[in-house]
Amino acid sequence: MARLVQKFGGTSVANLERMEAVAERVKRAYDAGDEVAVVVSAMAGETDRLCAHVEAVGPLYDAREYDVVVASGEQVSAGVFALVLQRAGVPARSWQGWQVPVKTDGAHGKARIVAIDTGELNRRMAGREVPVVCGFQGIGPDHRITTLGRGGSDTSAVALAAALRADRCDIYTDVDGVYTCDPRIVGKARKLDKITFEEMLEMASLGAKVLQTRAVELAMKEGVRLQVLSSFTDVPGTLVVGEDEVLEQEVISGVTYSRDEAKITLVRVPDRPGVAAGIFGPLAEANINVDMIVQNVAAESATTDLTFTVREADLERAVAVISQHRDRIGYADLRSDANVVKVSVIGVGMRSHAGVAQRMFSTLAEKGINIQVISTSEIKVSVLIEEIYTELALRALHTAYGLDAT
Amino acid sequence: MARLVQKFGGTSVANLERMEAVAERVKRAYDAGDEVAVVVSAMAGETDRLCAHVEAVGPLYDAREYDVVVASGEQVSAGVFALVLQRAGVPARSWQGWQVPVKTDGAHGKARIVAIDTGELNRRMAGREVPVVCGFQGIGPDHRITTLGRGGSDTSAVALAAALRADRCDIYTDVDGVYTCDPRIVGKARKLDKITFEEMLEMASLGAKVLQTRAVELAMKEGVRLQVLSSFTDVPGTLVVGEDEVLEQEVISGVTYSRDEAKITLVRVPDRPGVAAGIFGPLAEANINVDMIVQNVAAESATTDLTFTVREADLERAVAVISQHRDRIGYADLRSDANVVKVSVIGVGMRSHAGVAQRMFSTLAEKGINIQVISTSEIKVSVLIEEIYTELALRALHTAYGLDAT
Repeated sequence: MARLVQKFGGTSVANLERMEAVAERVKRAYDAGDEVAVVVSAMAGETDRLCAHVEAVGPLYDAREYDVVVASGEQVSAGVFALVLQRAGVPARSWQGWQVPVKTDGAHGKARIVAIDTGELNRRMAGREVPVVCGFQGIGPDHRITTLGRGGSDTSAVALAAALRADRCDIYTDVDGVYTCDPRIVGKARKLDKITFEEMLEMASLGAKVLQTRAVELAMKEGVRLQVLSSFTDVPGTLVVGEDEVLEQEVISGVTYSRDEAKITLVRVPDRPGVAAGIFGPLAEANINVDMIVQNVAAESATTDLTFTVREADLERAVAVISQHRDRIGYADLRSDANVVKVSVIGVGMRSHAGVAQRMFSTLAEKGINIQVISTSEIKVSVLIEEIYTELALRALHTAYGLDAT
Repeated sequence: MARLVQKFGGTSVANLERMEAVAERVKRAYDAGDEVAVVVSAMAGETDRLCAHVEAVGPLYDAREYDVVVASGEQVSAGVFALVLQRAGVPARSWQGWQVPVKTDGAHGKARIVAIDTGELNRRMAGREVPVVCGFQGIGPDHRITTLGRGGSDTSAVALAAALRADRCDIYTDVDGVYTCDPRIVGKARKLDKITFEEMLEMASLGAKVLQTRAVELAMKEGVRLQVLSSFTDVPGTLVVGEDEVLEQEVISGVTYSRDEAKITLVRVPDRPGVAAGIFGPLAEANINVDMIVQNVAAESATTDLTFTVREADLERAVAVISQHRDRIGYADLRSDANVVKVSVIGVGMRSHAGVAQRMFSTLAEKGINIQVISTSEIKVSVLIEEIYTELALRALHTAYGLDAT
């Protein structure tokens, strides 16, 4: 007997037919004697529809009322799913964020969970009832409905699993796990049985949109064992766990990429203290995130070339901000390029293995791919390359690190 | 300066354009210094859509979860309307039933309001904020969302007006008031400036679907002055008030009709004690409402003919129930007829005026219309006639009682 939190995303509860299918998963665990709590997202498309109502009123809206409107999507799916479970013979009851309550801070539209009162849920579960909790929702210190930001239901599920001291939090979604690379590009990509929280965090933030970054962070902090698996097939998914649970750690767990990158190079920037602050200060003020930064010191002059990357959507604004400050920065030329992709290899194993970065560089060199920018962290090596080489680079790296399925 | 409750129905908040139009009405009162609380229904069509989600799961559903699902319609309209008011320059805040709270009994799906805690609303209104309260919703003793039954938002508005001790409760709808007769049939029908609660109750239950019966009952009990008026035009509506406020009472306020009637005649029923109970007992057990009843004593025999009316939708079931008990009742023949209409004249003035019923009978006789059944109450005379005479009877009576517009 285990205590489980099962979270179903929007596509898993998109219509009655799908709800009936996933209800069978709840029923199976329930009938096996497990204590199950369910977390649901809004039915696919509903949150967009509700947002459109709010945005139609005007661009600057009161986040408190936004929360009231969009939270209704989960209200409906939780109510209907409770009915579907009841019809399948599973005693179920829906719970709104304010009913549990899921207490959050007052940051309407992007609230953070502060505490979950599980007293009543525990009593119900002990009485063999399945709570169907609305994801995404909470209640703020102002006694009003809050929401956690788009995709926040993963975070709701993990927070609930932590509060209920659940044995596992199963995130049911439309993919069946975490892969060594995007299977649409690398045919030999393998599904991972296990991955560490740290690796998953890098994966999530690099574009493998399987799990919300916040949810993984919270799971890591609270020690919640996560499983990502498909609502639509019956195969095991990928377990996201602490490093201690991964016995035979591969050096590299996956190769990821992000096309949402753009590069800006400032040519012949004066090489003096404070110049970096003069560039990145205004960008930060404009709320533009800078990712990779590289500075090439020119030996024979008092200037340097400075290259950095921003999100592609921010490129135009970033160029405008820099141009405004041209006199103060004093660069000779500004070059920008959106035809770039960031490719990364990720693995906690690289902490104890040398030569991981070198293998990446030599593999790309063999294929004649030029590396424009490099950045590294403890468990990740990222390079910026020309976008047309994306598929070639991913396949070559996947093979080079021994990740190909046999 | 007055304190007003303004209630907007589903068609008045059906889309952003309409919301913006009705927001101007709130703004006008607010800018004039009135204290305004708003009650909204779900956007037109939404409650049906939400009900369909519930009904799709199965015919026998848990009313608690039904309430969770359908209450979301008002949640959305209240949130969006608060945003629309804010944008129009009116400080506004949405309120869910559980937030106010609007306390109800535990009869999910058809709950009754027990108490409304107006402390916080009063504070907000004193601070020049307009509360936008979800109609239809409440919270039950089980700390779960309840709903008041279809059309319950009128009742929400009246209950709120009573709790807030409002000077008036304005029900904005898609008709501009209460008419002396259905204007689609009687071209000379006039809009009434005032009508008493008692008359309005008879009107409402007889098919002039302007106001919910429960809402009128509550307004009468609590002494809430009601006004029915159009969201779409700027003309004054009809005031529904106590009898003391109507100075120059017409004898008859209106002529109404209901086509949803069917007649059953039992021929030669034994004329002995207990026979009526033997007939109407089984009908009551089958939850069939009997309206008019007439018994013709046949002088020369020990039998009587008994005629009564039921709703047209109940006719088949009623005939089946009676037929089952034929032996016990002992009638010679059962005749049923759905081609009948009930026409009524309504007016508190008839309490102090003789000859009201007689004028009705003679007017119909002049037009050659046969009266099948008669029933009377203190402020109403109803007759059952053949359905094809509906228009003729309504127009003739409207003229005979001096109701025609000049």
